[in-house]
Amino acid sequence: MHHAVIIGGGFGGMNAARVLGSVPARVTLIDRRNFHLFQPLLYQVASGGLSPGDITAPLRHVLRREKNVSVLLAEVTSIDTVRRTVELDDGSELGYDTLIIAAGARNFYFGNDHWQRAAPGLKSIEDATEVRARILGAFENAERARDAAMRKEWLRFVVVGAGPTGVELAGAIAEISRDTMRGDFRNIKPEESEILLLEGSPRLLPAFPPDLSEKAERSLIRLGVRSRTGVRVTNIDSAGVDLTGPNGPERIVTRTVLWAAGVTMSPLGAMIAKQTGAETDRAGRVRVQSDLSIANHPEILVVGDLALFEQDGKPLPGLCPVAMQQGWHVRPVIEARLASKPAPAFRYHDKGTMATIGRNMAVADLGFVRFGGLLAWLAWLFIHLLYIVGFENRVLIALKWGFQYLTFNRGARLITGEPRKQ
Amino acid sequence: MHHAVIIGGGFGGMNAARVLGSVPARVTLIDRRNFHLFQPLLYQVASGGLSPGDITAPLRHVLRREKNVSVLLAEVTSIDTVRRTVELDDGSELGYDTLIIAAGARNFYFGNDHWQRAAPGLKSIEDATEVRARILGAFENAERARDAAMRKEWLRFVVVGAGPTGVELAGAIAEISRDTMRGDFRNIKPEESEILLLEGSPRLLPAFPPDLSEKAERSLIRLGVRSRTGVRVTNIDSAGVDLTGPNGPERIVTRTVLWAAGVTMSPLGAMIAKQTGAETDRAGRVRVQSDLSIANHPEILVVGDLALFEQDGKPLPGLCPVAMQQGWHVRPVIEARLASKPAPAFRYHDKGTMATIGRNMAVADLGFVRFGGLLAWLAWLFIHLLYIVGFENRVLIALKWGFQYLTFNRGARLITGEPRKQ
Repeated sequence: MHHAVIIGGGFGGMNAARVLGSVPARVTLIDRRNFHLFQPLLYQVASGGLSPGDITAPLRHVLRREKNVSVLLAEVTSIDTVRRTVELDDGSELGYDTLIIAAGARNFYFGNDHWQRAAPGLKSIEDATEVRARILGAFENAERARDAAMRKEWLRFVVVGAGPTGVELAGAIAEISRDTMRGDFRNIKPEESEILLLEGSPRLLPAFPPDLSEKAERSLIRLGVRSRTGVRVTNIDSAGVDLTGPNGPERIVTRTVLWAAGVTMSPLGAMIAKQTGAETDRAGRVRVQSDLSIANHPEILVVGDLALFEQDGKPLPGLCPVAMQQGWHVRPVIEARLASKPAPAFRYHDKGTMATIGRNMAVADLGFVRFGGLLAWLAWLFIHLLYIVGFENRVLIALKWGFQYLTFNRGARLITGEPRKQ
Repeated sequence: MHHAVIIGGGFGGMNAARVLGSVPARVTLIDRRNFHLFQPLLYQVASGGLSPGDITAPLRHVLRREKNVSVLLAEVTSIDTVRRTVELDDGSELGYDTLIIAAGARNFYFGNDHWQRAAPGLKSIEDATEVRARILGAFENAERARDAAMRKEWLRFVVVGAGPTGVELAGAIAEISRDTMRGDFRNIKPEESEILLLEGSPRLLPAFPPDLSEKAERSLIRLGVRSRTGVRVTNIDSAGVDLTGPNGPERIVTRTVLWAAGVTMSPLGAMIAKQTGAETDRAGRVRVQSDLSIANHPEILVVGDLALFEQDGKPLPGLCPVAMQQGWHVRPVIEARLASKPAPAFRYHDKGTMATIGRNMAVADLGFVRFGGLLAWLAWLFIHLLYIVGFENRVLIALKWGFQYLTFNRGARLITGEPRKQ
């Protein structure tokens, strides 16, 4: 029987496994984690609004009815495209007839991996609980600070990168300090926190149209977030950030820096490119044909963030809907392979992009129409509830958002792990 | 102004801080964590039914309306009962007029601290997520096992200690394997797991009346849990447990051992006993007078697990209701001190004890009546919902239990942290 191996259980891989449930083939989904993660809401875990369990779903449970699909909790250490096998971390090998690589992206510090300690990113559940501990712990350390200068350092938050994640995170920190924590402290006023959003491009949300960038900036200012565009970070350590910008070099003294700036691709991308001669771009994405396969390798498909797919002369962005639609497209491609027919071409149907800034504030670009404010925020809520996996998660998140809206409280404000010292 | 310092934000300390909100005194609550933890439901986090955020409440938020109460996220490193000061981990000192020690208990391995690595306990949120990762990871490793012998080792679970926590944990593992995971795997049958509950005393739930122990044992057998009473664990390592019992020494080969056997007291207990000459018992509890103060030190109160309080000739057990009621009693004692009157005596009002075993199965001992089964289970649900802190937590837990009851699913089945290797 035809054996399809899927590497990665994110939006691309999980959706591929789901649609392959009805194809006469054996399917193995390999992931290092036992759950699918709804990444767009990771910043809400980082800001204490949702729990890790709310935005994850066990992969086995999601795929329990697809009896031809096995889930393997393992890490792929190498791929052999000649023998058509993947090697796992326990040394075992798995043969494939079709390989679907959906291994995704990870945090990238532009070659400065030592920044990671001082400025955690936001790609995994562990990242999110670490960021949560840093944000909440900073207020605690400010409350205990001996002098005003130290208090100020702990109440200054810097978010690097003003894509949707950075904007959402900065907005959430502003809301925590202004609303959620009001009245919780005795020595500090959390609402006096400074929140800085740094961006290398000339404007916030560079992937959005300029008028929405402006709307987002105005909304952030209302929340108390100051943004600095056109600046380049040159160093990050545990006491602050160095940057250069229009006004020359500068240092911002702060105890909390959060990273939402760069992503790089899974090393499996480079491995597969080397073996197959496929082209990669600067970010490490692997160029795929119109059917998502690698040139001269119809048996290897790449989907999601790792795929470099050009449509109408432009590469598709690394967004969830792209990964999802590419995952679905795996089914007709494999059906064509089983029937020895030519594989159909993939086409992305762009339904728009959105980013939320805070309570009643978001921006949405649906292509034919662009808008911001309350309407965009409601659209954002609705879309995210629609795409979260699992009925129970949907109900719980709706309920938690309802509570949060009414009480300004955030229900999951835990500091776990090792605390930071003064 | 009179300054009351409370060490610990568990059931004793948090409730003391709450009731002191209306007393004309300055109050400082010190805890190493920023949240109050509802320990009785920790096993449900460990078994993937609830999230850490559901059973915790930020201490600051709980106490935000008590304007005379400050919360300090810090660790007490020493106490000086002569100068009446406590020293914190950052070297700073805090003077007190009344000191309330509610520092509680921790896991105790009977002097074999190296067992902890192989057999995590269940006292903190980090413990619970570690135990969760071990239980879920064991099924994953079984699914990947190369041979039947290894598969069996991964599907054998040993719980040491058959008090309420051990019984609840063993019951939950049984339900996960029998119901929750049904259909999730392709190579193993989770329902073939072996679950062993080990207890040193001659019967399960030794603190309960013998007929309820028997009821609990029958319920566990129905769930597929085998229990072994009257056995003593002599060693635990990553490959199994050694024990001696009626039939001599024996080794149980298993990859997953969970510890629910012993607790020991916070080292602050021994420190205070040494300085004040107070008596301690074998477990490290500090003997208190009828008003919860230490002999000859009316300004030092001990509440909760750490207090050795005899009532009707027997020491009170280390249970939440005891700690809670002792916490409440701090208010009349301090009011009496402020009025220079004799402090009132504490008396524990025992409303009964209960332990849940699984779906529709619990045992309850209300003193005047003892019962098991569905009624006890409903009573258990009701009482736990009543005492959880926070309206939102109450609603969310009720909803999650509803989902779990109807679908047999458990919503928080995440493996986080470093996975165990085969």
